[in-house]
Amino acid sequence: MKKIGLVTSGGDAPGMNAAIRAVVRVAYSHGLEVLGFERGWEGLLTNTFRRLTPRNVGGIVHLGGTILRTSRSPEFRKREGIQKAAETLSLNKVDGLVVIGGGGSLRGALELSGETTSLIVGVPATIDNDVFGTDETIGFDSAVNTAITEIDKIRDTANSHDRVFIVEVMGRKRGFLALTIGLTAGAEIILVPEVEYSLDQIVRTLEKNGAKGKKSGIIVAAEGIGDTRKLLNEIEEKAGVEVRLSVTGYAQRGGNPTARSRLLANLFGNKAVELLHNKQGNRMVALQEGKITSIDLEQVCSKEKQLDLSLMKLAQTLAT
Amino acid sequence: MKKIGLVTSGGDAPGMNAAIRAVVRVAYSHGLEVLGFERGWEGLLTNTFRRLTPRNVGGIVHLGGTILRTSRSPEFRKREGIQKAAETLSLNKVDGLVVIGGGGSLRGALELSGETTSLIVGVPATIDNDVFGTDETIGFDSAVNTAITEIDKIRDTANSHDRVFIVEVMGRKRGFLALTIGLTAGAEIILVPEVEYSLDQIVRTLEKNGAKGKKSGIIVAAEGIGDTRKLLNEIEEKAGVEVRLSVTGYAQRGGNPTARSRLLANLFGNKAVELLHNKQGNRMVALQEGKITSIDLEQVCSKEKQLDLSLMKLAQTLAT
Amino acid sequence: MKKIGLVTSGGDAPGMNAAIRAVVRVAYSHGLEVLGFERGWEGLLTNTFRRLTPRNVGGIVHLGGTILRTSRSPEFRKREGIQKAAETLSLNKVDGLVVIGGGGSLRGALELSGETTSLIVGVPATIDNDVFGTDETIGFDSAVNTAITEIDKIRDTANSHDRVFIVEVMGRKRGFLALTIGLTAGAEIILVPEVEYSLDQIVRTLEKNGAKGKKSGIIVAAEGIGDTRKLLNEIEEKAGVEVRLSVTGYAQRGGNPTARSRLLANLFGNKAVELLHNKQGNRMVALQEGKITSIDLEQVCSKEKQLDLSLMKLAQTLAT
Amino acid sequence: MKKIGLVTSGGDAPGMNAAIRAVVRVAYSHGLEVLGFERGWEGLLTNTFRRLTPRNVGGIVHLGGTILRTSRSPEFRKREGIQKAAETLSLNKVDGLVVIGGGGSLRGALELSGETTSLIVGVPATIDNDVFGTDETIGFDSAVNTAITEIDKIRDTANSHDRVFIVEVMGRKRGFLALTIGLTAGAEIILVPEVEYSLDQIVRTLEKNGAKGKKSGIIVAAEGIGDTRKLLNEIEEKAGVEVRLSVTGYAQRGGNPTARSRLLANLFGNKAVELLHNKQGNRMVALQEGKITSIDLEQVCSKEKQLDLSLMKLAQTLAT
Repeated sequence: MKKIGLVTSGGDAPGMNAAIRAVVRVAYSHGLEVLGFERGWEGLLTNTFRRLTPRNVGGIVHLGGTILRTSRSPEFRKREGIQKAAETLSLNKVDGLVVIGGGGSLRGALELSGETTSLIVGVPATIDNDVFGTDETIGFDSAVNTAITEIDKIRDTANSHDRVFIVEVMGRKRGFLALTIGLTAGAEIILVPEVEYSLDQIVRTLEKNGAKGKKSGIIVAAEGIGDTRKLLNEIEEKAGVEVRLSVTGYAQRGGNPTARSRLLANLFGNKAVELLHNKQGNRMVALQEGKITSIDLEQVCSKEKQLDLSLMKLAQTLAT
Repeated sequence: MKKIGLVTSGGDAPGMNAAIRAVVRVAYSHGLEVLGFERGWEGLLTNTFRRLTPRNVGGIVHLGGTILRTSRSPEFRKREGIQKAAETLSLNKVDGLVVIGGGGSLRGALELSGETTSLIVGVPATIDNDVFGTDETIGFDSAVNTAITEIDKIRDTANSHDRVFIVEVMGRKRGFLALTIGLTAGAEIILVPEVEYSLDQIVRTLEKNGAKGKKSGIIVAAEGIGDTRKLLNEIEEKAGVEVRLSVTGYAQRGGNPTARSRLLANLFGNKAVELLHNKQGNRMVALQEGKITSIDLEQVCSKEKQLDLSLMKLAQTLAT
Repeated sequence: MKKIGLVTSGGDAPGMNAAIRAVVRVAYSHGLEVLGFERGWEGLLTNTFRRLTPRNVGGIVHLGGTILRTSRSPEFRKREGIQKAAETLSLNKVDGLVVIGGGGSLRGALELSGETTSLIVGVPATIDNDVFGTDETIGFDSAVNTAITEIDKIRDTANSHDRVFIVEVMGRKRGFLALTIGLTAGAEIILVPEVEYSLDQIVRTLEKNGAKGKKSGIIVAAEGIGDTRKLLNEIEEKAGVEVRLSVTGYAQRGGNPTARSRLLANLFGNKAVELLHNKQGNRMVALQEGKITSIDLEQVCSKEKQLDLSLMKLAQTLAT
Repeated sequence: MKKIGLVTSGGDAPGMNAAIRAVVRVAYSHGLEVLGFERGWEGLLTNTFRRLTPRNVGGIVHLGGTILRTSRSPEFRKREGIQKAAETLSLNKVDGLVVIGGGGSLRGALELSGETTSLIVGVPATIDNDVFGTDETIGFDSAVNTAITEIDKIRDTANSHDRVFIVEVMGRKRGFLALTIGLTAGAEIILVPEVEYSLDQIVRTLEKNGAKGKKSGIIVAAEGIGDTRKLLNEIEEKAGVEVRLSVTGYAQRGGNPTARSRLLANLFGNKAVELLHNKQGNRMVALQEGKITSIDLEQVCSKEKQLDLSLMKLAQTLAT
């Protein structure tokens, strides 16, 4: 193991830069060189990279985004794409590759690992936290905090106007973001794709709250539950109250990472290089039971992470 | 002048609470009692108020929203509404009324002043900054800062993905928010209702930037320009680039006020009480040429504030 | 179990209010009444409390401080104090008491448990994270984030001036805060009470960095290491560079809690009530291996939490 | 006018980067070239600069610090220093120089203007706001907001503990920062160097507040008033209350600039280039009566800006 490659892929997440810095600096402490491929898989398809050194990854630990840039690259996932990437690794004598990204990127990493002798290690980084095998992904905590800070502000307005707000948050098809955001923002109602909701129940909850004198309320809805504008209309009609919709946008994906996202990035980056240094590939670094560990990439890609439904129940109790 | 009333009306704005605190404490320093009418004009229609004292307005200078709550009250604007409000003032022996709110609320204040012997003073408070006669309204600076903080985060993601974002901001029919946000966030393009935009020109600008290697970009669009989702589709089609839309939502209306919104609230609140103390009514406090002053309410309601188009030109030069 | 008491004690920590809300609302869901004793142990010494209900703990999940207030109460710790508190519990027929606070408060809780038939459950809440038996305390994550946000700003100035800064952070006699802050802020040097530092080594590190062209730097120092002003003078003299000192102050103790501090507060509050509901006392709720659990209070008070020194080593590697 | 120079000098202030970007981009729109001298006057003494272009000042509008770096340079102020700098300007055919900085830097600019044929224009940028002739300097609004955000957090802790805090803020020998911070943070007491304070009066105010049930309090003290630690001891002794000291540090000098600091930077940068383009030198751009204008540099350096004492009085009324 003399030279490793590094790529950030898929949607960006706060803490990716901290992970890049960690991988590079730990690598150099082991005498490894690092090539940073640019714009996600595109860099591997087009052999575009820059040498990363401890000095040129300075001053980025606190910055959102990724200095290597990223992309979603559908053509990579075709067989020719994978083979082209494998050739690029071989051409540059890259002994190991660290892939920083979310579920799609990790599936790409697994596919690539079947076509190359380079060892592949994944680092889970996505605000969605929807990666099997790790309790948390880089960026999740940052996105949650950005969203609850926004909801804290919306609550000012909700209270002043006695109004109900639907706040749509990210998370693609899963409810990890919505659940944690709703629980910590003190939302009155949380809607996630994993649990079917009932319009009747929403209306009953709002009416019960109204009867208790709590006329404002926050409904946190995962984007994955479907059309929130339609939901708004249905609630307005059925409950006879004014409802507003606020879609928390791409800001959730950017911004300075929180301490926890940075810490995870440091620990994951360190672990990824250690795995390669010990000639272990085909794995993803992970947080399990409060400890940094690793898990087989194939397992990551073949199973689905479960949403902790006991937290949904707690959220209901707390939103009384 | 022994007793004054206070009402916050229309959309809430950060700094309204600071203004309430200022009005109450300055009033008490002049020996005046203060009644706070609740939920905007509704409080005057239903004679719902609470006594405000220096003690019970403590600890609110930094909070968003309004402790008096607010509402938009269409029925108030009918003749009977105005007369009912005038009766409430008379019934409670309110010698002067401070109305804190935006354009609609100030028009309401003007109408009320024609039906009552109470002196009426307006305090301009709206994030939209669209009130004639004052260079700035309470809450505007806060909303601008909330928006640019969000855009700073979006830029992380825009840069990492080489993507163009349309960021829709508030401002109702006017472009004051969009212009200041765009100028200070370093937006590549700013779209305001006051200036017709050309799709061709937008596309040309994006192409010119792309040719210079600047593939990401932020288009700040006032909500007043129309359907931003449609605009997105048109740009994508014509420019052949991926565009994302982020609608900055109600968070702009809440949150802790900035120093400037609080300062304006303090100065406006103080001036409003001084006017009443000096038996001057039918006026709105204002910031003009860097100084606190006041202006005839009728003038406020009959003229339209101009957008400074020289700033649009500067923004273009700076976004090169 | 019909009635429980609740007290926040010692230094306040962000998330205490979220914990109060969680305890009260979960308690009511089990049909339990809640008395909130005020100003820490003082409330138990003087029998000062208020009834807490799901409604009157609304709107506080996101607020720093504690609505019950808190105090450090040396007289409580004397035998008469403990007995007086036990009498108060008995007088009010309090079957169980939840004590939210740090190490000192938990020791008080343990002592009290020896003198009363009320069941006592501790909830670890302190920004210092120095409580044995739990991987994290309520407030720690918030304080870390407040500090790194401040250091991110200081770095702007450090870089612009090519200057070295010592940033003194809180943590009393322990280095938990300093270590996590230093690691996530990317500090060049971290000084904690648990590891003796060498002036020579500090100077060598600064010189080595200077030789690499990195003339600015951040030294994060725990308050527990001693006089940072003296250290500054020694470094300036020996290294011949300009050094500035910034003492991050009490702001670390306040402010809106982060999502993680709120989440922990919700989970700890829930667990504390469940323990009492199941008639278990003399325990502290805890986070261990990523899970919510509980531990014997006596054990908490008799052992010392270890600082993870491997993180110190990682921080050095990352600060290259 | 073909080529202009640009230098940031003295303490850094948020918005300096936005001003650099504005100067460069406006200059290029007029066909002017720009040299950026590095590390303040040092760059002029050692002829160290880089060419600044619209492209290489991209992505900095929102960043604290200054990409040109800065320094305090005592040797510059000697006659030989000034002459060396004048030679550098002449050597590089710099027709005009924009100096971005505070009072000391502007005095340097004035002295330099006596020794060179290059036209000199100053841009006031300092968090202290202590520059005569302009109502506001770049960075002031940012520093105020950073400080009040910190004080909002401290107030959580002050309230929870019923404690008095002294918060020492920056401002060097002047009270501009302390006054605006104190007024907008709702401080109970504000101490500025321009107004002698009386220990007796401070104690009386605290006692009066205590009698009203307001046992916590914030005293905002300018660093220029002297030893705040000593003041703390005196208050504790005389008032018999516990007092804590929090020194807001260098974070006030860094961080992303607020919208207002960025706006001022844009407008000042634009005006500075316009002055040079119109062959006007020996001036400082300024904000007066809400408008962008300019003033003779000599006047700036020979007069002292007055603190608005009516605001001190208002602050007292509001802190009732």
